[in-house]
Amino acid sequence: MNAEQRRALEDEVKTLGDEIRQLKAGKADPDLVSLTNQFTMFRTLVSRIAYSARLSEETVVKPRIAYAQRSGKRIKERVNKMLAKKKELGVTDEKPGKFVLKTGKGTRDYGPAQSALRNAVLEKVVETFNKYGAETIDTPVFELRDVLMGKYGEEGGKLVYDLQDQGGELLSLRYDLTVPFARYLAMNKITNITRYQIAKVYRRDQPVMSRGRYREFYQCDFDIAGQYDLMLPEAECLGIVNELLTKLEIGEFFINLNHRLILEGMFAVSGIEAKDFKTICSSVDKLDKTPWAEVEEEMIKEKFLKREQTEKLGQLVRFRELNGDLSNLELLDKMSQLPELGQNEKFKKGAEELKVLIGYLEVDGVTTVRYEPSLARGLDYYTGAIYEAVAPKALEGTAAEKCEETAGQPVGVGSVAAGGRYDGLVNMFDAKLKVPCCGVSFGIERLFAIMEARQKNTIRTTQTEVYVVSAQKNLVMERKKLLRTLRAAGIKSEMPLKANPKLLTQLQYAENARIPLAAVIGEREVQEGIVKLRNVVTREEKDVPLDQLVNTIRETLATL
Amino acid sequence: MNAEQRRALEDEVKTLGDEIRQLKAGKADPDLVSLTNQFTMFRTLVSRIAYSARLSEETVVKPRIAYAQRSGKRIKERVNKMLAKKKELGVTDEKPGKFVLKTGKGTRDYGPAQSALRNAVLEKVVETFNKYGAETIDTPVFELRDVLMGKYGEEGGKLVYDLQDQGGELLSLRYDLTVPFARYLAMNKITNITRYQIAKVYRRDQPVMSRGRYREFYQCDFDIAGQYDLMLPEAECLGIVNELLTKLEIGEFFINLNHRLILEGMFAVSGIEAKDFKTICSSVDKLDKTPWAEVEEEMIKEKFLKREQTEKLGQLVRFRELNGDLSNLELLDKMSQLPELGQNEKFKKGAEELKVLIGYLEVDGVTTVRYEPSLARGLDYYTGAIYEAVAPKALEGTAAEKCEETAGQPVGVGSVAAGGRYDGLVNMFDAKLKVPCCGVSFGIERLFAIMEARQKNTIRTTQTEVYVVSAQKNLVMERKKLLRTLRAAGIKSEMPLKANPKLLTQLQYAENARIPLAAVIGEREVQEGIVKLRNVVTREEKDVPLDQLVNTIRETLATL
Repeated sequence: MNAEQRRALEDEVKTLGDEIRQLKAGKADPDLVSLTNQFTMFRTLVSRIAYSARLSEETVVKPRIAYAQRSGKRIKERVNKMLAKKKELGVTDEKPGKFVLKTGKGTRDYGPAQSALRNAVLEKVVETFNKYGAETIDTPVFELRDVLMGKYGEEGGKLVYDLQDQGGELLSLRYDLTVPFARYLAMNKITNITRYQIAKVYRRDQPVMSRGRYREFYQCDFDIAGQYDLMLPEAECLGIVNELLTKLEIGEFFINLNHRLILEGMFAVSGIEAKDFKTICSSVDKLDKTPWAEVEEEMIKEKFLKREQTEKLGQLVRFRELNGDLSNLELLDKMSQLPELGQNEKFKKGAEELKVLIGYLEVDGVTTVRYEPSLARGLDYYTGAIYEAVAPKALEGTAAEKCEETAGQPVGVGSVAAGGRYDGLVNMFDAKLKVPCCGVSFGIERLFAIMEARQKNTIRTTQTEVYVVSAQKNLVMERKKLLRTLRAAGIKSEMPLKANPKLLTQLQYAENARIPLAAVIGEREVQEGIVKLRNVVTREEKDVPLDQLVNTIRETLATL
Repeated sequence: MNAEQRRALEDEVKTLGDEIRQLKAGKADPDLVSLTNQFTMFRTLVSRIAYSARLSEETVVKPRIAYAQRSGKRIKERVNKMLAKKKELGVTDEKPGKFVLKTGKGTRDYGPAQSALRNAVLEKVVETFNKYGAETIDTPVFELRDVLMGKYGEEGGKLVYDLQDQGGELLSLRYDLTVPFARYLAMNKITNITRYQIAKVYRRDQPVMSRGRYREFYQCDFDIAGQYDLMLPEAECLGIVNELLTKLEIGEFFINLNHRLILEGMFAVSGIEAKDFKTICSSVDKLDKTPWAEVEEEMIKEKFLKREQTEKLGQLVRFRELNGDLSNLELLDKMSQLPELGQNEKFKKGAEELKVLIGYLEVDGVTTVRYEPSLARGLDYYTGAIYEAVAPKALEGTAAEKCEETAGQPVGVGSVAAGGRYDGLVNMFDAKLKVPCCGVSFGIERLFAIMEARQKNTIRTTQTEVYVVSAQKNLVMERKKLLRTLRAAGIKSEMPLKANPKLLTQLQYAENARIPLAAVIGEREVQEGIVKLRNVVTREEKDVPLDQLVNTIRETLATL
């Protein structure tokens, strides 16, 4: 699929989306809701295909495209049919004065299933942070505008949501968690804290919902602030990344590692001026997705480097690519033996520091770190080691095309965690306060999406263990008594909130909600002082005397 | 303390606060930070005193006031001294162009201790919701302004934070969680869900930080939406309130219960017109804090009732007050036997419904519910049963005057949870969708404050179980190896991020952070393959062979 085809497909999808949205605005119709859901699935699918097509031209994407186009056509036909029908019926699309029931652009609700998944992931995240001795803090969702101003560059600044001036202070929604963290440290003169923070941030970006780019999204940061010894904090950060990604079972992943001073050294010996550092970094950083020839072209044509400069630089930043089988230490040593680079003070210092870190990681058993001299991101900001975790196969084997609407994000590529040392941030608020920091930010929205795609069963949205069911009428008090016994024993349980529910309806509910056990009572059971305990999956039932019920349930739950 | 004295005291405190804030703005000085902390304590204290003075005139508050005034004077003296000193030194208070490092008005950071406490409380809250089979959802922090508009009455509407019009939709921050919930149900045509949501809401109210009135604060809602049988959902809500407040150990509490139709019936037989329902409700609802005579006066003078009306009404709404020893059913029965009221259809229906609920609560073992015909809040909104939990002694025995800056809120009185049936809310968004709802909202900020005041020990801000300590230099790799072993076994552990930390400093850190165990290694231990395991509190130490360490630690932790 070439760019034009892709664009055409995306346009078609957009038009379709607008139509459906207009329809929906006019009159919310159950048919249309289901149609909209289908559309969302379709759009997600198309975007996935477009994305994977860009990634690997060899991949056989044609059948998928055909499927998507068929779905698209089918949906469009149905929409047209419905439009015609509505016209016939004289229903206008937009009623004047009636407002559209929707969430703000680029935001969404998380229903029970998405919330349950997110909570399950966040539980593991927090567990890992706690294991490493972190504290947590919380800061307000908005900050004084002055606090945020000038911290995100020109581009970022444009994306900050401002609150309306309703008298009083000028406020803006937080754009990330790092600047509020620095403000917190400076304001409270804290020079020493290891903290995590998981909270939503806000960016007035152009949303691409199908790719998971939203205007409200979670960030998940872990940072070690304080005057510590060389590379010990970095080793903790990388240990956490390694442990958490392993625990989440997102498939093979690795952590690229580099150092600002190594980049500066390589640039210097290639004859690149310090003023060009940032712009050339942004070219070099594309090397993970773009071939060298293209990157070189860009540096020459758009950034005015000479070919002799790019050729020198290419030999250095591609050192991992050209020496794939060397260990991290061997690679660093080999680079150190290069005549010019080996003599560069900056490179020497950077390489020495990374060697210390690599030594620590070996003792820590962190084997997923890979020294990668072309890693060059976040350098507005980072002053020392930088790292970024990627999980190239996170989506492999998942049925992306069967996937329901997911949390989005182009998964399977791209970074799932990134960080580094930033010693200057707190200084922006207090020139006298020296608080060296290093940290890592998890791409938690991307991790949610990966986990959603990889999960084999639909996630349970409640934790109910026992459903209390009656086999006959007029047993509401008996059910309540039983429920009280179970809850008093700490067993998570519910019953239908109907006086006389039908037995089949109740059992069906338990099955749908994937509640493992049902406690069934009828008149016989009440008289005999027993409960029929039913395994909802196998449908096996056994009579259990009331006084043994709690223990039997506990034992049964333990074996499931 | 009369109102005037109180006001004078509060003014003094305010002036003091402004002075300190100005000082702080000029130059942040460690002395001033500590001073500000003292001031906050002092202000909290004064507000508590003022509050409790209003509550019970008999309480001996004089010594506390004296203490507060002495503290105030002492602080003021120190501030004056410092001001003079700064003047001498030629330091100006405000540097032009320098912005003040603070959070937005009415908002605050939660440091590690407050965050840990909140998380501990929320864990119990969520555990209880899960036990009752609830799901959870999440909605965006802002909504289309049209969604919120007109939902909070004139007063509430003024307090909504608007986002600036930066092109695109008009947005506002959510003011509560109920309207977004109704929007979520209507938008997705959901007719059936039991969900909780815990999230922050925003109100541009005049903040009173010392009393816990903030502009950003948590709400914690549990709601059952769906067509169920009479009073079964209400019984679940009251069961949750009862169970959670018991679990939180906030001291004696009870849950007042009433019904909208009972209020309407009592008003009708007192000759009060339907159009006056809301305004008279707001008077009646004051009866929990204000004597009848005052309330009656207000109804006559400000709301133009006749004395014969108020006299009739008083006999009815004060029925619990006048018959304190009757059970709920007895009280309802006695009211039903009143000649006029007993014949009123509305009252009869309300009373019948409450009797069903009271019957359920008995079977559920919920004994804290008290039928209270003067409970009359939220009636813009509620259509059936209403309830409100109060914990009058939640602060009893806590050392409020020794308290450090707390999460605020006037604790020990007032409602800690409130709710009821509201069958009309979803209709505001979709006239055709009938989704009866009932729910309860916990005063979670107030519960945080109560838990903070009642806790006996400072809460731990990390969960670290073992601190890995070295007794000599050059053992960083050995410490790391040990740490790796512990973490691999799932033991929460950290080590100082210094290459050669001092033994005493390390042990001191473990004590301060209340980490229960320290694993100490020196050269001897490394050579012999042992670890010195130290109980940080008792300072007992014993040598443990490396291969038994993990088990020994687990056993020891289990006994602590």
